[in-house]
Amino acid sequence: MTVKQLPLPDLVAQCVRLGVPGVGLWREPVREYGVEAAAALVRDAGLTVTTLCRGGFFTSEGWEAENRAAIDEAAALGTDTLVLVSGGLPARGPGLRDLPAARARIADAIAALAPYAAERGIRLAIEPLHPMFAADRCAICTLDQALDIAERFPAGEVGVVVDTYHLWWDDRAPAAVSRAGAEGRIHSFQLADWITPLPAGVLNGRGQLGSGAIDLAAWCELVEQAGYSGPVEVELFNDELWARDGVEVLEETVEAFLGV
Amino acid sequence: MTVKQLPLPDLVAQCVRLGVPGVGLWREPVREYGVEAAAALVRDAGLTVTTLCRGGFFTSEGWEAENRAAIDEAAALGTDTLVLVSGGLPARGPGLRDLPAARARIADAIAALAPYAAERGIRLAIEPLHPMFAADRCAICTLDQALDIAERFPAGEVGVVVDTYHLWWDDRAPAAVSRAGAEGRIHSFQLADWITPLPAGVLNGRGQLGSGAIDLAAWCELVEQAGYSGPVEVELFNDELWARDGVEVLEETVEAFLGV
Repeated sequence: MTVKQLPLPDLVAQCVRLGVPGVGLWREPVREYGVEAAAALVRDAGLTVTTLCRGGFFTSEGWEAENRAAIDEAAALGTDTLVLVSGGLPARGPGLRDLPAARARIADAIAALAPYAAERGIRLAIEPLHPMFAADRCAICTLDQALDIAERFPAGEVGVVVDTYHLWWDDRAPAAVSRAGAEGRIHSFQLADWITPLPAGVLNGRGQLGSGAIDLAAWCELVEQAGYSGPVEVELFNDELWARDGVEVLEETVEAFLGV
Repeated sequence: MTVKQLPLPDLVAQCVRLGVPGVGLWREPVREYGVEAAAALVRDAGLTVTTLCRGGFFTSEGWEAENRAAIDEAAALGTDTLVLVSGGLPARGPGLRDLPAARARIADAIAALAPYAAERGIRLAIEPLHPMFAADRCAICTLDQALDIAERFPAGEVGVVVDTYHLWWDDRAPAAVSRAGAEGRIHSFQLADWITPLPAGVLNGRGQLGSGAIDLAAWCELVEQAGYSGPVEVELFNDELWARDGVEVLEETVEAFLGV
């Protein structure tokens, strides 16, 4: 998503050229290209699909069919992890302002999906989003909340995403990262920096690594000390980066990553 | 601040007309009008000054003189409470990305100010701001963090602000409200609703009561059950409301408040 302006074949070719060993993919471009074709493209290039983004939105109608499809796509792509953005408050109904009820619905939905995912070798990774998304994208706002749900399942089936952009402000996050690591539940680690002012809608203002307020080196150390040794994803939603040449942005991102 | 388009005498007259018994004031319009003149205006109308906003920004240069002045103005206005917005990361220096260090600086600054405030009969009320302001306005993101600092002082000297807009997403906030209430540390209770999409800069997008995602009635009950029986402030930063006729907005706000 960091360089969504690049068509999938270009993304894959550039990752290979730049020595990036794996790539996290999003469902929309994968479906557009064809799931099987995308799987072959990435596999033939020797890249790993680190995660598929995203399932979730459990408070919206049709969530179950949508998430089963996402699990199937993850399995077809050969990744082991589906990232879940859980959804916010329902758009209608008596639960319109009931955050605890939305959280209970999310936990129930994950319980309903977990066996289907486990049968297909897909780990569900609950991603807590920054609290500014609580109403409309994700009622799971902290790593502790995500872990409270994940712990109802085996660690190999349900875990969490640690994303610096969403968690950096939380004084309880370091302890939660240790907790997640001790249980083997860190299923994805994502980097993005926090820059201000936030743009309207607040979705597409993530900063290039090193350009913002987050001590990314400290986060890398924290996650490593928690026992995580898997891939590190860089996920920048940023209108300005998307408007630029994708190869240039990818090169810059690799450089920024190596500088953390 | 909800109707900052109203000059102070109009605000006071309209509050009296609408049966609003008290008003929270901000430093800028008070200083513009003259602190003593503002104090006389409000006092002669029989209104209470519920709080003065705001001191704080402890990570900026010159914070001590600025905050002593704010305490003096609060005392002159006859309010008992100065709201503190603590400040974010420093703009320069080695602590540029060090949130724990910023929080420690904030706690130290409050310790330095508390005696000066207590001597003048002013309670310092630490306001946790929504985590989306952590970098640039307030490193204190949760009510628990605010209480951890406040508890180093007598409850009559340092307490907290409970603002629904900043805290509604936090699953630990209800317990923290009970904790604050049990200690007599709720020094201000403020209402605003959460609406999306957020505007650019995210500062001026607070929703009129009842227009958004927050269960305000539940929050009022929570704070009441924690033992709080003081004033309830409505604080809406909203460009659209500010662009309208102030009297109309004030009438609408009173009606919305009574409907919670």
